[in-house]
Amino acid sequence: MKNIYLLGATGSIGTQTLDVIRQHPDKFRLVAFSAGRNIELTKKIINEFRPAYVSVISEQSAKQLAEQYKEVEFGFGDEGLINVATYDAVAGDEHFVLSAVMGAVGLLPTLKAIEMRRTIGIANKETLVTAGHLVMEKARKYGVKLLPVDSEHSAIYQCLQGEDAKAIRKIIITASGGSFRDYTREMLKEVTREQALNHPNWSMGAKITIDSATMMNKGLEVIEAHWLFDLPYDQIETILHRQSIIHSMVEFEDTSIIAHLGTPDMRIPIQFAMSYPERIDLKQSKSLKLEEVGMLEFKKMDFERFPCLKMAYEAGHEGGSCPTVLNAANEAAVDLFLKDKISFLDIEKVVYESLEHHHKVDRPALEDIIEIDKNTRRIITEKYE
Amino acid sequence: MKNIYLLGATGSIGTQTLDVIRQHPDKFRLVAFSAGRNIELTKKIINEFRPAYVSVISEQSAKQLAEQYKEVEFGFGDEGLINVATYDAVAGDEHFVLSAVMGAVGLLPTLKAIEMRRTIGIANKETLVTAGHLVMEKARKYGVKLLPVDSEHSAIYQCLQGEDAKAIRKIIITASGGSFRDYTREMLKEVTREQALNHPNWSMGAKITIDSATMMNKGLEVIEAHWLFDLPYDQIETILHRQSIIHSMVEFEDTSIIAHLGTPDMRIPIQFAMSYPERIDLKQSKSLKLEEVGMLEFKKMDFERFPCLKMAYEAGHEGGSCPTVLNAANEAAVDLFLKDKISFLDIEKVVYESLEHHHKVDRPALEDIIEIDKNTRRIITEKYE
Repeated sequence: MKNIYLLGATGSIGTQTLDVIRQHPDKFRLVAFSAGRNIELTKKIINEFRPAYVSVISEQSAKQLAEQYKEVEFGFGDEGLINVATYDAVAGDEHFVLSAVMGAVGLLPTLKAIEMRRTIGIANKETLVTAGHLVMEKARKYGVKLLPVDSEHSAIYQCLQGEDAKAIRKIIITASGGSFRDYTREMLKEVTREQALNHPNWSMGAKITIDSATMMNKGLEVIEAHWLFDLPYDQIETILHRQSIIHSMVEFEDTSIIAHLGTPDMRIPIQFAMSYPERIDLKQSKSLKLEEVGMLEFKKMDFERFPCLKMAYEAGHEGGSCPTVLNAANEAAVDLFLKDKISFLDIEKVVYESLEHHHKVDRPALEDIIEIDKNTRRIITEKYE
Repeated sequence: MKNIYLLGATGSIGTQTLDVIRQHPDKFRLVAFSAGRNIELTKKIINEFRPAYVSVISEQSAKQLAEQYKEVEFGFGDEGLINVATYDAVAGDEHFVLSAVMGAVGLLPTLKAIEMRRTIGIANKETLVTAGHLVMEKARKYGVKLLPVDSEHSAIYQCLQGEDAKAIRKIIITASGGSFRDYTREMLKEVTREQALNHPNWSMGAKITIDSATMMNKGLEVIEAHWLFDLPYDQIETILHRQSIIHSMVEFEDTSIIAHLGTPDMRIPIQFAMSYPERIDLKQSKSLKLEEVGMLEFKKMDFERFPCLKMAYEAGHEGGSCPTVLNAANEAAVDLFLKDKISFLDIEKVVYESLEHHHKVDRPALEDIIEIDKNTRRIITEKYE
């Protein structure tokens, strides 16, 4: 039995993680989770899974829930997230922390869970983007496995099973192109929030759907891959593949390419990380039928069309605190766009300005990262909100 | 240093194997080889690789060569092939026998090499088709690895690295469709030998190119896969994929599909088998550029259009001596077609008749197989030649 500590249970990845737990009650037990603003859903999860610890956003919600559920411990805020990741009052053979919260808030709980030598499933790419060197260093120090939950990184991880990392020539991350893949730059000037939120292949949260439309999502994935797979940026390629059937690929020294294909079902990578190193049945998921798909298309990535991806590569190359700024500026900008405060094309402008004005710190410590993250957001909010 | 014993050095797989040895003189040493009728090529190979033992087809050629090359041992015929596979006068850390001869003659040398506990590279699918149960039983008994060299089986083998065979849902073998993939059954009545030999994707020997056009090649591959991967036939699927870029796939219990992609370069699977478990550089081979390929297409396999594939599945299901008959009849029929004695559509007719008239032997011993193989060929030759 694996104890599951789920950060972000009420989000898109979170609810799909619950689906996986639901299917395998003999393998997984939800011990602790954190929830977002949806209190009704939080209650449903408590009723169904009977966890020992739950963290919510506000102290008030925590108190109200505590009155209703006497047998459950409640927490809230940043401390609550850490408590979820480190909760240790329930014995278990194995402990698996799934970080599926959105944005940079996933960083501290992840670091704390690593210190407890818990295997981590990383659905929160911002953690690695903003502080990859700290997370990987700590994971190495404590001998902890970081298992990717992003479909692309899970694909690469799966393609690398049984292979020698030294034989990797490059990894190739596929990109659907997002909601506006058939739009010219000119057409992007007028697009709305609703249009941007309409992803052609995947059903995901709002932030990542916007990131897909700007291609920043692929940029964050490139930086995440750099850390997860310990590869220089010139061995990380991206390619446009509108069907999202090939989730990513690895090319080896002998020019063999190993690829992962599947339906766009996030439960596949979630379950792979949870059940690793075993691969178990996923009954709910339908087999991919390539004869029905009929055709897979590929196009060279266009960095002029998708400047956010270009900025991400540059920030990654630059290193130091630059990816932190890239990520914080992007989170703030997407938030402003979702609140209708800025236009779609302003997102890249805001990120560009933030990187331009930043004085790089070479090996930022955790405090530096937290401060740079906050400052970046503050400056943007002051200017645009 | 790995000692290489190469059965069929002058054929298509053989010369490409020599290419691989040429590129890695620090890893591979050609100790013994068998050649076909091309004596000039045989001499060139001897001059370049300085092997210790060479087998040719006729005693006369062996004698002539022996006069010219005093330091090389020569043999001929069936015994010569066995000598190549079992030659042991050159010390080495590892011994690798590559069986790249065409047809059922590969069987005996393979069995003998297994008894010497040598790792075998199987480019000769007829060996497993005609006597899979004997070969696999012996390989298990002597703890010998059989490494596939066929591009499809190598692909599957690579996809299975680091995976648990119990988690396989099915394997999916891709088929280009061969020279006549865009022809109707009606159009096949008139096709010539030259048209049939013109494969759209792969440059291969004559027999396998015809087998591709009839789809019997895929049928033999299905039976080979059944033995190599120990899977029932209902877990072995085929799909039409005209670009031959995806070489084959494995679907697992969680609906994940792992696929192998590459350029149509047989040196990739040859080298993979030779260097296994290492994966080494293949400098001559070009990286696949999916953005240049642009599109991969898939179509449901059509068993009415390709009755040879259907017969192969049926013979495989039926088991016993049926695959031996399928294979022998097909070899004889293709030979007749290549000699312009029968038409293209007669190939499937000849195979069908042979299977119809055969009385199945349930667990044929080696002698049964050899006799059934001979008889099948004799009957066909008597009738059509």
